[in-house]
Amino acid sequence: MNVTIAGKTRSFRSVTFDAAANAVCLIDQRLLPHRFRILRCTSYEETAAAIRQMVVRGAPAIAATAAYGLAQGIRAFAGKDRRRFAHHVRRVHQALREARPTAVDPAHAMAEVLAAMRAGNRISEKQALALAAAEEFAHRSAEECRALGEQGLSLIRDGARILTHCNAGWLACVDYGTATAPLYLAHARGIRFHVYCTETRPRSQGAALTAWELAQQGIAHTVIADTAVGLLMRSGRVDMVLVGSDRVLARTGDVTNKIGTYNLAVLAKQHGIPFYVAVPLSTLDWSLESAEEVPIEERAASEVLGAWGVPDSPDPGSDRPLRRASRIYVRVANPGSPAWNPAFDVTPAALVTGILTPRGLFKPGELWSKRQWLQTNPVHSSQADTGD
Amino acid sequence: MNVTIAGKTRSFRSVTFDAAANAVCLIDQRLLPHRFRILRCTSYEETAAAIRQMVVRGAPAIAATAAYGLAQGIRAFAGKDRRRFAHHVRRVHQALREARPTAVDPAHAMAEVLAAMRAGNRISEKQALALAAAEEFAHRSAEECRALGEQGLSLIRDGARILTHCNAGWLACVDYGTATAPLYLAHARGIRFHVYCTETRPRSQGAALTAWELAQQGIAHTVIADTAVGLLMRSGRVDMVLVGSDRVLARTGDVTNKIGTYNLAVLAKQHGIPFYVAVPLSTLDWSLESAEEVPIEERAASEVLGAWGVPDSPDPGSDRPLRRASRIYVRVANPGSPAWNPAFDVTPAALVTGILTPRGLFKPGELWSKRQWLQTNPVHSSQADTGD
Repeated sequence: MNVTIAGKTRSFRSVTFDAAANAVCLIDQRLLPHRFRILRCTSYEETAAAIRQMVVRGAPAIAATAAYGLAQGIRAFAGKDRRRFAHHVRRVHQALREARPTAVDPAHAMAEVLAAMRAGNRISEKQALALAAAEEFAHRSAEECRALGEQGLSLIRDGARILTHCNAGWLACVDYGTATAPLYLAHARGIRFHVYCTETRPRSQGAALTAWELAQQGIAHTVIADTAVGLLMRSGRVDMVLVGSDRVLARTGDVTNKIGTYNLAVLAKQHGIPFYVAVPLSTLDWSLESAEEVPIEERAASEVLGAWGVPDSPDPGSDRPLRRASRIYVRVANPGSPAWNPAFDVTPAALVTGILTPRGLFKPGELWSKRQWLQTNPVHSSQADTGD
Repeated sequence: MNVTIAGKTRSFRSVTFDAAANAVCLIDQRLLPHRFRILRCTSYEETAAAIRQMVVRGAPAIAATAAYGLAQGIRAFAGKDRRRFAHHVRRVHQALREARPTAVDPAHAMAEVLAAMRAGNRISEKQALALAAAEEFAHRSAEECRALGEQGLSLIRDGARILTHCNAGWLACVDYGTATAPLYLAHARGIRFHVYCTETRPRSQGAALTAWELAQQGIAHTVIADTAVGLLMRSGRVDMVLVGSDRVLARTGDVTNKIGTYNLAVLAKQHGIPFYVAVPLSTLDWSLESAEEVPIEERAASEVLGAWGVPDSPDPGSDRPLRRASRIYVRVANPGSPAWNPAFDVTPAALVTGILTPRGLFKPGELWSKRQWLQTNPVHSSQADTGD
């Protein structure tokens, strides 16, 4: 997507590869929204460290980063010894796997790179194939989000007021994002709409990242506290809720997403507001039988007990340029009080109006019956069949 | 209530009067939970400034502060000229009224002080009567909260898990609090229970003040992000919701309270969890016909776009002593993004299980039919009739 810094507009992806320098280039998401910087990782060790240190976040973006990092490491091998090469590849693979051990998407992405590499003969050939596979993975991931956006375009009517939660944007993907993809495509076609971004405590991805993304594209938006959602809906200011998901249970249609999504779904139902979930195909989980099996990760209590931000005056000019200052932690809560900090919740299928995928919009109960179509067909870019 | 600082326990009220020094003594709520300090206001101008600068917050606490401040100013007059005295009283009254012009409770409290003063003859007599009336007002306010607590005691069963929002505690009143009053009385009787405090963004009164209050009394509690309420209820960890209110419409039973209260009420209904609202009698509004007439105050966008806290390590020892450092503002959101910051929302009577008052527990639809009893009878301290 386009990013404008100091009056200059350029197109970026959250992760790209500089083949001449053998470098993985990442938007440093730890600095946003206060500072925009591209971090160039010139070795696979640096790329693994960047994954570990949350320079990059969001399953699709991390997956592409891991694929690029693996190709980067493979390309860095100098020599002709095939056994030493194989040993090197294993070491690179392991270092990147261990950078985010619980994530599934990076493991799948790296498996694709390794499989492609094996088709080569000479080491140099394997190196070229590895990079081509990583590039292909990243390209396909971006195209899938674009297809998702086109499938969702018809949901974004002129004048619509859309509520979103957390960041299901292009920063979390390679490009376009999931919940944001229909918004960006609609905006490009001149459709006017307004987005409400929930702050999304405790990590505030809505206020920090989604608001930054929308501002960069010139899309009208308003940040609200998570507490203001009920009043916003009750006063008739929301036409639809559109969120992403970390895992959709294809058997049941239940949706795992950032903590607070379930609150929104219950409130949306209460007010008769449609509730949509946008996901790439890799987010559909075909194995789990019940949402009870989904582990709810708990994060550090400090996130709930305080906030990360840049020291500032509470009332600066609204068009203030990005600051150079780093974020600090401030304690807000009573010192010594404990906190509970679940990262995700589960929204039951009954509260979900539709699951938006690159292959079309489905009712949550429909996914399982369409599994042949959703699991096997290749994704075609813009004009994917709706699957009916 | 008792407060323990550096191992020493003493009993405090949020506002008291030092007659010998003619000083209004306030717990400085701007410093909590990071520092406990009593601010001594030695002139009515200082008391008015303290109200203006949010040293004290919560309608009952501000009302008592205004009453004391008026008596303080009246007592400061030296001389025998009755016309100059009358002029002085008007000036004091006006200064305190202008410190929080929209609040109703301070105006009523000061009217009581003025009415009592008029019964006196000599200036010194008037001065004594003014202070007696202010003391009487504060005492009655504390007693009303205690009566509220006794009326609510039976709701707090052994083992109960109670969710509360914002701060409806003793800091906001003269003593005991509203929603917290049944908790403090139950705790004193050895009943064990657990309180979940919602953070209550954007001003975080739950994490900062309610958690501090509960910790001071040794009551088991956990702070949660506002986003975690749905999951908490869905996982069966809440037996009741108990909140305060800024205004209960006696005609309809609708409840105005801190932004996010409506979210809790909808979620509680969804999970079959009873939802109680605890209020002193002065919070019952007998005039408004509909919740549509209640103005929803909007506050500064900066509250939503950032946070106030004390710079700290994210992982300090949990029993760290109170710090001396001041709070600073950190910007969390994208610079330049706008925010909407409504301070209150309205919860319709249909979502309210009961309104807890110093005269008993009522169904929201019952208030109007009991108006004779609720408007005219004096409040008796501990054993108020339930009104049936």
